[in-house]
Amino acid sequence: MHFFSDNATPLCPPVMAAIAAADREDHGYDGDQWSARLDAAFGDLFETPVSALWVATGTAANSIALACLCPPYGGIVCHEEAHIVVDECGAPGFFTHGASLMPLPGEGAKLTPDVVAERLAAIRPDVHQVPARAISITNATEYGRVYTPDEVAALGEIARTHGLGFHMDGARFANAVAFLGCAPADVTWRAGVDALSFGCVKNGGMVGEALLFFGPERERRAAEAMRWRKRSGHLFSKGRYLAAQILAMVEDGLWLANASAANAAAQALAEATTGRLLHPVEANELFLRLSAPEAAALRAQEFDFYDWGAGAARIVTNWSQDADSVAPLADALRRLDHG
Amino acid sequence: MHFFSDNATPLCPPVMAAIAAADREDHGYDGDQWSARLDAAFGDLFETPVSALWVATGTAANSIALACLCPPYGGIVCHEEAHIVVDECGAPGFFTHGASLMPLPGEGAKLTPDVVAERLAAIRPDVHQVPARAISITNATEYGRVYTPDEVAALGEIARTHGLGFHMDGARFANAVAFLGCAPADVTWRAGVDALSFGCVKNGGMVGEALLFFGPERERRAAEAMRWRKRSGHLFSKGRYLAAQILAMVEDGLWLANASAANAAAQALAEATTGRLLHPVEANELFLRLSAPEAAALRAQEFDFYDWGAGAARIVTNWSQDADSVAPLADALRRLDHG
Amino acid sequence: MHFFSDNATPLCPPVMAAIAAADREDHGYDGDQWSARLDAAFGDLFETPVSALWVATGTAANSIALACLCPPYGGIVCHEEAHIVVDECGAPGFFTHGASLMPLPGEGAKLTPDVVAERLAAIRPDVHQVPARAISITNATEYGRVYTPDEVAALGEIARTHGLGFHMDGARFANAVAFLGCAPADVTWRAGVDALSFGCVKNGGMVGEALLFFGPERERRAAEAMRWRKRSGHLFSKGRYLAAQILAMVEDGLWLANASAANAAAQALAEATTGRLLHPVEANELFLRLSAPEAAALRAQEFDFYDWGAGAARIVTNWSQDADSVAPLADALRRLDHG
Amino acid sequence: MHFFSDNATPLCPPVMAAIAAADREDHGYDGDQWSARLDAAFGDLFETPVSALWVATGTAANSIALACLCPPYGGIVCHEEAHIVVDECGAPGFFTHGASLMPLPGEGAKLTPDVVAERLAAIRPDVHQVPARAISITNATEYGRVYTPDEVAALGEIARTHGLGFHMDGARFANAVAFLGCAPADVTWRAGVDALSFGCVKNGGMVGEALLFFGPERERRAAEAMRWRKRSGHLFSKGRYLAAQILAMVEDGLWLANASAANAAAQALAEATTGRLLHPVEANELFLRLSAPEAAALRAQEFDFYDWGAGAARIVTNWSQDADSVAPLADALRRLDHG
Repeated sequence: MHFFSDNATPLCPPVMAAIAAADREDHGYDGDQWSARLDAAFGDLFETPVSALWVATGTAANSIALACLCPPYGGIVCHEEAHIVVDECGAPGFFTHGASLMPLPGEGAKLTPDVVAERLAAIRPDVHQVPARAISITNATEYGRVYTPDEVAALGEIARTHGLGFHMDGARFANAVAFLGCAPADVTWRAGVDALSFGCVKNGGMVGEALLFFGPERERRAAEAMRWRKRSGHLFSKGRYLAAQILAMVEDGLWLANASAANAAAQALAEATTGRLLHPVEANELFLRLSAPEAAALRAQEFDFYDWGAGAARIVTNWSQDADSVAPLADALRRLDHG
Repeated sequence: MHFFSDNATPLCPPVMAAIAAADREDHGYDGDQWSARLDAAFGDLFETPVSALWVATGTAANSIALACLCPPYGGIVCHEEAHIVVDECGAPGFFTHGASLMPLPGEGAKLTPDVVAERLAAIRPDVHQVPARAISITNATEYGRVYTPDEVAALGEIARTHGLGFHMDGARFANAVAFLGCAPADVTWRAGVDALSFGCVKNGGMVGEALLFFGPERERRAAEAMRWRKRSGHLFSKGRYLAAQILAMVEDGLWLANASAANAAAQALAEATTGRLLHPVEANELFLRLSAPEAAALRAQEFDFYDWGAGAARIVTNWSQDADSVAPLADALRRLDHG
Repeated sequence: MHFFSDNATPLCPPVMAAIAAADREDHGYDGDQWSARLDAAFGDLFETPVSALWVATGTAANSIALACLCPPYGGIVCHEEAHIVVDECGAPGFFTHGASLMPLPGEGAKLTPDVVAERLAAIRPDVHQVPARAISITNATEYGRVYTPDEVAALGEIARTHGLGFHMDGARFANAVAFLGCAPADVTWRAGVDALSFGCVKNGGMVGEALLFFGPERERRAAEAMRWRKRSGHLFSKGRYLAAQILAMVEDGLWLANASAANAAAQALAEATTGRLLHPVEANELFLRLSAPEAAALRAQEFDFYDWGAGAARIVTNWSQDADSVAPLADALRRLDHG
Repeated sequence: MHFFSDNATPLCPPVMAAIAAADREDHGYDGDQWSARLDAAFGDLFETPVSALWVATGTAANSIALACLCPPYGGIVCHEEAHIVVDECGAPGFFTHGASLMPLPGEGAKLTPDVVAERLAAIRPDVHQVPARAISITNATEYGRVYTPDEVAALGEIARTHGLGFHMDGARFANAVAFLGCAPADVTWRAGVDALSFGCVKNGGMVGEALLFFGPERERRAAEAMRWRKRSGHLFSKGRYLAAQILAMVEDGLWLANASAANAAAQALAEATTGRLLHPVEANELFLRLSAPEAAALRAQEFDFYDWGAGAARIVTNWSQDADSVAPLADALRRLDHG
């Protein structure tokens, strides 16, 4: 059984069905009937007007969002272990034309208001220093931690008072909402988020993430984002196949059902190995202490996963699993401790 | 019957079958078994070692190729009606960090050696002027014209003697080869081409084009291209679905069969309307004189297509058609003249 | 006697005196007393509030202006022989992060409203094409031609109606105003110009040109320009020496006196060789038909100048000359025709 | 007496004399006789072939050097308090087209081999992470500390083994060499440095710093740097005035004499206030604990300087001072402790 990554899984059947249903003649690029439904579909989901675009990947969604929120001479406050910092080969610098990332520490890859406020206070208001122009957070974080609506709102308030754009990398947004049980609106625009990278691929999709803009500037920013999308080679000539996947995710609640299944699987594993956890398990990722012999023992039982440095491992669950289906690994983990 | 664009068509069945076959667990990004087969598949097709990458779109393929061939302070010699000039919202300038396009005239959107040589000779060898560093041509061109191996080789020789990289935009490369009946190698690397954007989507694919590098520098350039692919958000987390589509195209000759069908459809229409043609029909596009009433008459018979300025129209055929299936439009065109 | 370029001349004495006068302790960068006077000095000269910055060169002034007027995905309408197109090694593309130059033809390197309007009308309003966002003209032009206030205003009206920024490269602005005898305001902001590169170095300065912003957005744009100036390494640590030179030029009318002298010298030469002129002589440059033997004959008399292609030459006069001082060349030119 | 910055001082007389001596007709840009002497002058000083360019500022020198050493997708290892990180408004990101700075801690703004090696070891060799491609250090550092030849060589060895370019920001290089008493070569190319920003303005110049390339790739890199210089608007049309200043500095040892005077002044002050020093004084900067009342007391005696956060101050000496001339401040500092 594989726990490498939620990138490694097949498509969930409704997504494949949506692709097949979109497989007929229609206008190219984003001129098709599916793309035309995106704004309304996300507007319903978020209970507010939304400007939505499909793009190829989460890296593209994050980078285009940041290019719309931060000028080339600006800075983007973010966590030092954020995906935009460590796993995108400098894509934000490419799309923003050289804006500076301003990485900060924080437990579980979460930013805290105090650390952000202190960083902002340290910037001299002259032309020699890079002015902060945006904040970017990841929810759920790279360590599977979840920001609550109040935690997001506290950062949103700092963004508002400092005139910064506020972006959320939601590659695993569904897992965060599934954990919180809140309205998607509560942890995004109601908390001050201007732009959201809404992940679909890790949650059962094939290709295509959604970039969402909220608030009064959403249309101006989306119009600019459409320029960046074309300019960066992300305006697919048969965009309907992306739009159809995204609609399949959001129009019937599939996004949340899939994430809930993955989270449940993660919780089942967490309960089996509480003593080893390096971070509380809130979404669909577990980080746990695991010695080399223990890792080898699990792999001998055909459980695959990535090491996470020496003596630790990362286990990622996905939409195709649930508490029952991961029981074999849960049992194997228990045996490590109570063999 | 629609003749808007070869972007508007459904997928050809083998491509959809390949997507379904790839729908199982495998490593993410380009670590899967399908992506691993690309170099060999294109190596067989082109009879030479090839370094191949999948990217999202033709715009991305063209731009990444140019970023690997031309420095930011360099210039790219191209046709003034090339896709990179008029239909990519400045994407080459984005990926190359500001390289200058050097547009030149030429019948049927084809560059000729004389015009290119004259342009190159006019550049002063000082730091004040932008030095040409690459040539980019489109085959088949934006007007459906095809460069022969000799015509490409003549430009390739100029590129070689001036130390310029040589790129071919092959969004409709299959249509060009189908018309020429030559080996793919003859009209590319044997003629001096360093990088080829190998189109799949217009030819029956869903998403994903191939970027190919030939020659002694191919591995260095491909390694750099992989950085640009990631950096521009084109490294899909489930790349196997793109690789599988591309392999379905090239491993069994589907790419050429599809293009031959589209070309045959275009020839059938061309024969029906020779007197109106603005350009010789060599690939799968027709540009013809058509008055507003004539266009209206055809549309009244449910033939759809784009106007091409006043008094002209563009008709594009595709993989799903052939001479027989477009007979109704052929007849309708004949009736316009011999009503 | 040298007629290579107005770049080759020494400083005019008041500029050297101003440098010496600024040679004392003061705050660094642009925090000094001379830099603080720039806005007011240009405000007086242009009869309107002005936001002024010193930068190193005309290329920097032009590029920073364009970066403030045009987004990376926009286009800049300009003449195909403009300095920004042919003599800045792509600097506008560097500062604008890849904006596209949209070169147009026109006699004497002058843009005409019809040609500009036609180019703008040809741009499709979709994301595939680069939208024009700015117009840039050079006054006096690269061929020493001068735009009148009415000619500038006609282009300014097009800029206004299309929402384009309007930039003027004034490397030889003083020569243009000296020829026109109008108020500087008439040929700039009153005619719709948003940003002016005000040249000093060709007119007797050592280092430092002024970048001026007019109109309601001047402060926002200047604030952004200050970011670009720092970011591009143009915020000198001893900026007072640049500011002092510029003030010496504009506070006492030196800029106009110098240009008038250069223009008078050019007129004296023009009268001596009317039959050979390739362009009317309006500023301080002459372009004339001159055979190789004739050029050799002049050089044998120690008159230096650059060839301008085969059978032609460019002669540039400067602030240190006047009608009398160039009489020897005038006589030599007459002798060519009436030997 | 002012101790704000070595940017605030007048020119040293030989530099002003050199400007006057260059004030005659010569070819423009870098085609003059002074610019032609730069390579040889620095070749003599560094005992090795050197390719030298003048640029406007230290920010430009640093950024152009980094653009020649690091690709847009690369990373630059540097100190978290380096000028390129905190005082250039992101200029390195602008010139490198988005390369990532990789800031590291270190006492006195000095990088240590261990910290650098650890950072490099943490980078995964895949396309998701930014690969380090350059190291940049400042000598003397932003805290007036000096790297010894051995310390530079240890970092140079890391650069060599990892295939990284090695840049030294020498805004106060003269002060470092004056402190070390070594050959300039020992602390640069002999220690593995590829590119040096050789500062002149803080050391008595008006405008113009030198960018030097050493080693087998120097000519290729300098040729590229000349493109960046033009492209960034730093190719002055009367470059001879910059070249003449730089030659005045280096051809007769003025650079070292000026720095020695500034260092001696700093030492005299250091001896007067050893108990307050936050960093050892090695070059021409002192950072000392100073309460608000103490700072006020010194300012009341007309000693000016910048606060350095709460309870501290920065005092900078310059070429126009020496131990005797700063005695009044030395006495005043002593009185603070032994009033």
